[in-house]
Amino acid sequence: MTKQNNRTELSSLGEFGLINLIAKSVKVHNRSTIKGIGDDAAVIDNKSQMTVITTDMLLENVHFDLSFTPLKHLGYKAIVVNLSDIYAMNAIPQQVLVSIAVSNRFSLEAIEEIYSGINLACSQYKVDLAGGDTNSSASGLVLSITAIGQAASEDIVYRNQAKLQDLICVTGDLGAAYLGLQLLTREKRIFLENPEIQPDITGYDYLLERQLKPEARKDIIELLKQTGIRPTSMIDISDGLASELLHLCTQSRTGCQILENRIPIDMKTAELAEEFNINPVTCALNGGEDYELLFTVHPDDKEKIKTLKDVHIIGSITESSKGYKMLDQQKQEIDLKALGWDAFIKKGV
Amino acid sequence: MTKQNNRTELSSLGEFGLINLIAKSVKVHNRSTIKGIGDDAAVIDNKSQMTVITTDMLLENVHFDLSFTPLKHLGYKAIVVNLSDIYAMNAIPQQVLVSIAVSNRFSLEAIEEIYSGINLACSQYKVDLAGGDTNSSASGLVLSITAIGQAASEDIVYRNQAKLQDLICVTGDLGAAYLGLQLLTREKRIFLENPEIQPDITGYDYLLERQLKPEARKDIIELLKQTGIRPTSMIDISDGLASELLHLCTQSRTGCQILENRIPIDMKTAELAEEFNINPVTCALNGGEDYELLFTVHPDDKEKIKTLKDVHIIGSITESSKGYKMLDQQKQEIDLKALGWDAFIKKGV
Repeated sequence: MTKQNNRTELSSLGEFGLINLIAKSVKVHNRSTIKGIGDDAAVIDNKSQMTVITTDMLLENVHFDLSFTPLKHLGYKAIVVNLSDIYAMNAIPQQVLVSIAVSNRFSLEAIEEIYSGINLACSQYKVDLAGGDTNSSASGLVLSITAIGQAASEDIVYRNQAKLQDLICVTGDLGAAYLGLQLLTREKRIFLENPEIQPDITGYDYLLERQLKPEARKDIIELLKQTGIRPTSMIDISDGLASELLHLCTQSRTGCQILENRIPIDMKTAELAEEFNINPVTCALNGGEDYELLFTVHPDDKEKIKTLKDVHIIGSITESSKGYKMLDQQKQEIDLKALGWDAFIKKGV
Repeated sequence: MTKQNNRTELSSLGEFGLINLIAKSVKVHNRSTIKGIGDDAAVIDNKSQMTVITTDMLLENVHFDLSFTPLKHLGYKAIVVNLSDIYAMNAIPQQVLVSIAVSNRFSLEAIEEIYSGINLACSQYKVDLAGGDTNSSASGLVLSITAIGQAASEDIVYRNQAKLQDLICVTGDLGAAYLGLQLLTREKRIFLENPEIQPDITGYDYLLERQLKPEARKDIIELLKQTGIRPTSMIDISDGLASELLHLCTQSRTGCQILENRIPIDMKTAELAEEFNINPVTCALNGGEDYELLFTVHPDDKEKIKTLKDVHIIGSITESSKGYKMLDQQKQEIDLKALGWDAFIKKGV
């Protein structure tokens, strides 16, 4: 193996060398993982449970910018955003498969950094890296993650079962990840224009962490179970509250009304939004990458929900003829529109 | 929607428009597919069966060259190569997830071509497209497929259970897909040097089909089941016979001896190999992309195996101390080495 300045060329390992190296760093957490890396496919034992599967692809310069994304964080985030989809079904993630493509721009050490983040997320959320695929790419880095979860069939929550008068709830706070990205993008631009100027990101750790190292709301899924609350519908917020709410309502054939002043926004988000001259509510509605949960519950669960930390009731489900509305501070009705993250618009493709 | 010369820009649909369009073309084949496209994750019902999962990423100019790969064939092949991994576990594929990334070089019609191939493969093999992810890419086309299969736990065949004296079997014939690729690459080079010269690929339909539209050996898995033969170990041949045989033997901690004159090679493969001045056996050993099955059976199954169409006994499992050997036509022992497809060597990454 050729080593130079701690850079190991991938060509010195070959594909199987790389696979072996990845396999060695993997720990198995779930008894249902019968066979992980090392055969044609992973094998998962299901004791009459439902299997829940989701997949997401992350591309360099589309979903992430390596000039300000540490590789370890990238690996961590790639796993977390997929687990978030599994939790949004009210299921428990058990396995992930990771496919990766890299060009010769990346050394072995770079790949190890990515997998250290992947493994950290796996151990944090007790999921098993059970397989994948390694490839060379002509230019950028590509990650494709598949997450597999399990749930009893009666526990699974779909996004199309919201009912009239159900309460609309969101977890955590919204808009921070979007502003974290704006901050990083601004500092990068300033740096490129004048490399002498040092990035000024002090005081915004929370927003940066929301962008670079998001967490999936495993805690909320556990809390709801403990409290005996089964949401009627649920979705995770990856493209902004407005877009997700519209998904949930169109699929459930309902309308909705939310209150602007109930949308949870962190103080730091509001501060930086002002600095950028953006309405923080716009960040919450359309920013995306929050990975919080949006769900509806039966009105009878209102008192129970109110006791839950980090869960906010922001409105209720209405008849579909009422449309998708937000009442602003002056009680004016505003139409909610899905202006969320859309790869094909944003990148002008 | 902007249409010009039958080219619809993806920007005119947006991401969700594209997803809806893909979802509309999908038919569900399996009762275990409780929920396909349209939620955070697919839901699969398992009646105490094992779930088997595999994933593969295909990148433009690494795994395929669009200058001679029809998009429909690409979609078909992307699914088939993943199903091949599921069959190689002696499991039955049930669902696939498809993630795709495209640049603005691709029109909607191009994406529809790819999905027509994907849907054709799904209907051919009775699997359900149950989810996925659509993305924009900075340059090339990327496909990432996850295939999910089921099997009773006692039916699953791993690659690490070959036993001393087991017979080594391969299906179909080997080396054709590799030569098909060589042919296409040669004709492309000639065309680029002199566009007046028309490609000369007549008479090699079989080799081109093996390269551009391979099939997974579903028929063999069914045949083995009908005949009551359970392989002791199995792997699919994607990287060449030598590489796969070494995987199987190292994981089973055995050696092997195969006979050169037993390796199944089609007449057309031999013909074109001669034209290219390559030994056809080298194509079979190291060419790859055959998607045939390599498996071992107990010696007691010999007579049964001999009656099976398209299954060839090529040697037997030996003690690990004997190494990995091939007896050539002169009964000389040759060491088998894994020189198979290796993205990191081939592409010089």
